[in-house]
Amino acid sequence: MSVSTPRGRTAGGVLVVGIDPGTTATGYGVVERAVDGRLLLHECGVFRTTAANPLHARIREIYEGIDGVLETFEPDMVSVEAVFQGKNVRSALVLGHARGAILLSASLRDIPIAEYAPREIKKAVVGRGGATKEQVAWMVQERLRLKAPPSPGDAADGVAAALCHITLAVEGGPPGFLPHRFASGGEHA
Amino acid sequence: MSVSTPRGRTAGGVLVVGIDPGTTATGYGVVERAVDGRLLLHECGVFRTTAANPLHARIREIYEGIDGVLETFEPDMVSVEAVFQGKNVRSALVLGHARGAILLSASLRDIPIAEYAPREIKKAVVGRGGATKEQVAWMVQERLRLKAPPSPGDAADGVAAALCHITLAVEGGPPGFLPHRFASGGEHA
Repeated sequence: MSVSTPRGRTAGGVLVVGIDPGTTATGYGVVERAVDGRLLLHECGVFRTTAANPLHARIREIYEGIDGVLETFEPDMVSVEAVFQGKNVRSALVLGHARGAILLSASLRDIPIAEYAPREIKKAVVGRGGATKEQVAWMVQERLRLKAPPSPGDAADGVAAALCHITLAVEGGPPGFLPHRFASGGEHA
Repeated sequence: MSVSTPRGRTAGGVLVVGIDPGTTATGYGVVERAVDGRLLLHECGVFRTTAANPLHARIREIYEGIDGVLETFEPDMVSVEAVFQGKNVRSALVLGHARGAILLSASLRDIPIAEYAPREIKKAVVGRGGATKEQVAWMVQERLRLKAPPSPGDAADGVAAALCHITLAVEGGPPGFLPHRFASGGEHA
């Protein structure tokens, strides 16, 4: 499932593919920051794997999905949600397989990879590390001037990962926002 | 690091690549069972990753190493140690990345994958699920009629994974051994 817009890439823009990895559903968003500061959503979507398939077949589905996106858009950067909170060893092992396939796709194409923890993404996009999934989706809609939040929710999380990198690394942080890596004391959430 | 023998593949034999995945060191062994029952070790070795590299670069190293072995030998089956015992969430997540890269390599080449738990491998190769690493290495040496156990130890674990699949799925179990999947009661360890 994906939504794409027919706009071409702008000259001099920075194009980022954001990814929210999961074994069942991997969300992604292709976001460009034009030189004039406009944010363009080129495509977003979710790769769902076939639950009945063995793990190796499912990670192949994820790999081929993401690899197709990277081949189509040739991004300057891949921004991946870094996880990993409150799950058990078995969940972590399985999720690791999916992330391995995603990182491999970017690495084999020599595309630089940035990783952000879920809290970093929420803070960069919404301003609060503890923001809800709905708040993230709403802010993604606002910043990209969409008519509705990206759907389904996993797609919005992929878009948010891309926006996070653009906000922190390309724009140097949102207005009035001090990126935490340069902050002297604690979190700004 | 690898040791290869210059023998060619025999007609009608079954060739299995066994793999013991790890983020730091991934051991592998290329074992063939000839139609006359002889076991031939074509190659074994260890892919070590560069500890200073980021995770995506390390899993690329593992992927390219294993993918080269699969390209060279075109095995009938890949046999992978299934793990996972007694480690924490972070270790599981990282190991999952390495396993994902390995399974992906086999999956993209349409090579069937068998997975065996460490206890299954020890039981199939040594006869006891609780065998030590040294006992596994010694039995690998015996069964393949080597002058010394495969070195380093991670290579022997890769060879053992291949031997396990050959023993259980190709030969139907060692002499006097009832594969546990057909056994009616408990473990034979």
